[in-house]
Amino acid sequence: MADPMPSWWRGATKTAVLEFVEAVTTAGSPDFVPPPERIAVFDNDGTLWCGQPAQAQVLFACDRAAELAAADPSLKAREPFRAFLDRDMKAIEALGKEGRFAFAFAIHAGMTVEAFQRLVRDWLDKARHPTLQRPYDQTVYQPQLELLAHLRASGFKTFIVSGGGVDFMRAFAERVYGVPPEQVIGSSVKLRFDAAGVGPCELTKLAELDSFDDREVKVENIGLHIGRRPILAFGNSDGDLAMMRYTVSGPGRRLALLLHHDDAEREVAYDREFRLSPLVEALDNAARYGLTVVSMKRDWEAVFVE
Amino acid sequence: MADPMPSWWRGATKTAVLEFVEAVTTAGSPDFVPPPERIAVFDNDGTLWCGQPAQAQVLFACDRAAELAAADPSLKAREPFRAFLDRDMKAIEALGKEGRFAFAFAIHAGMTVEAFQRLVRDWLDKARHPTLQRPYDQTVYQPQLELLAHLRASGFKTFIVSGGGVDFMRAFAERVYGVPPEQVIGSSVKLRFDAAGVGPCELTKLAELDSFDDREVKVENIGLHIGRRPILAFGNSDGDLAMMRYTVSGPGRRLALLLHHDDAEREVAYDREFRLSPLVEALDNAARYGLTVVSMKRDWEAVFVE
Repeated sequence: MADPMPSWWRGATKTAVLEFVEAVTTAGSPDFVPPPERIAVFDNDGTLWCGQPAQAQVLFACDRAAELAAADPSLKAREPFRAFLDRDMKAIEALGKEGRFAFAFAIHAGMTVEAFQRLVRDWLDKARHPTLQRPYDQTVYQPQLELLAHLRASGFKTFIVSGGGVDFMRAFAERVYGVPPEQVIGSSVKLRFDAAGVGPCELTKLAELDSFDDREVKVENIGLHIGRRPILAFGNSDGDLAMMRYTVSGPGRRLALLLHHDDAEREVAYDREFRLSPLVEALDNAARYGLTVVSMKRDWEAVFVE
Repeated sequence: MADPMPSWWRGATKTAVLEFVEAVTTAGSPDFVPPPERIAVFDNDGTLWCGQPAQAQVLFACDRAAELAAADPSLKAREPFRAFLDRDMKAIEALGKEGRFAFAFAIHAGMTVEAFQRLVRDWLDKARHPTLQRPYDQTVYQPQLELLAHLRASGFKTFIVSGGGVDFMRAFAERVYGVPPEQVIGSSVKLRFDAAGVGPCELTKLAELDSFDDREVKVENIGLHIGRRPILAFGNSDGDLAMMRYTVSGPGRRLALLLHHDDAEREVAYDREFRLSPLVEALDNAARYGLTVVSMKRDWEAVFVE
């Protein structure tokens, strides 16, 4: 049989993943899980694609701020507009994780969801990643595409559960990851549907944050959107720890994978010092929490899609 | 070819439904819709199963109130406990649609989602519908099971979008309708995940209402949960009108179906006077809004599952 994950080095981690999938999908196995219960959840930034030097949505907001400032130069002097315009990472960091997303959301208030997604698609068509110098589509991790495909071929339903904006991710998740919009969970603003009068029936994005999908909230949103405890979770930061702990604490076979960015040569080596989304507690307590650490350096034969 | 919907009388409505499905699924048809975009949304109470004399969840709350009052008799004198204990429909109606659900939610605060769903399943196993005198599973409409199955066989993804509690419906929707939990959208309370300490990692239901999934909010929740405009919607009350209007106002072929309960002999004839969930505006303006009215009396050869 062909290797379903050729970009993973043969070793203990790959064996653990393949063996888990086989155990839960083999009829008659004591670990067998019926297909409807084969739920897998993946973080996005830093797990499915590159999260450096910042989450893609932060870089999108920088570009968007530049467009808005071109139309209204008075914005240039206003914080946090100025920070995004200047790509001042220290000032952007100082906003906090939620503050950064709140800014990214606020500048799109009043747009319809469909217009916003056209904006995201147009940006992805022309933007280039600032350090990798390639389109964002090519900052996606090839080993993860293989894992997602292997899970789906094995009867899993694959979900994204990310701090990123849900409408932002849905603009590309189906094309890039094969994950349809209804299987993307993320941070969100409140939406408004106004069917009064005879105008078009559209959903509009409001400025008000609805959910900041990080840490414990990831689990609460899994409860709201999926309603079933996943049997596999994959993350790369402390923001994913609650979701990984929720996953492994259910009955039966479970697998939680933690990607460690330890490959300075092919990507970026970072963990606890990355202020936009640190990895400290999950890494220091991986064994205690039952997490399988995936080393980008040792476990991945290829990193990015070609 | 076998008739996929034998419980629908041959006539204009059935023809419209079958013709719609054929048009959007036939490759090369000008109305062809790729499978990932074949999203169908169904209301639950009064659309997929009987919603009389009240939504099943209201009747569940009545039974639950009796259990709680048995353990704590002081509750018997307290409103709205007393109204539910006495099945005082006038007093229950007076609470308003949201107030009724708020009570149903509040009495389960503090339970884990999983424990609550065991409670619902136990209730469904033993409860009998007060007027139809049969288990609730048998208050499901046979023609709708056939339509759901036909849509799924035609590459549709079928969703429930209901004012009912999402955790309540998820306890039976997969078994009864073939709709998995992640395709059930409903009213919800906030959930809390507490991973501090070494206790079990569980999601707990809080008393606070998160979303009352009715009218415009149904569309906003479609935006949050699905992220794609449905091409087919099926409802039976004004609470479904926004979702039907959103569905038909997109580009390309669309179908919105409105079930009219006009069959006093086999079920209950009701519409504008049903205070728990009236049907007025959608019925009076069906043609203007592009809705196809389904008459239970004339379009359904059978009503309930056997």
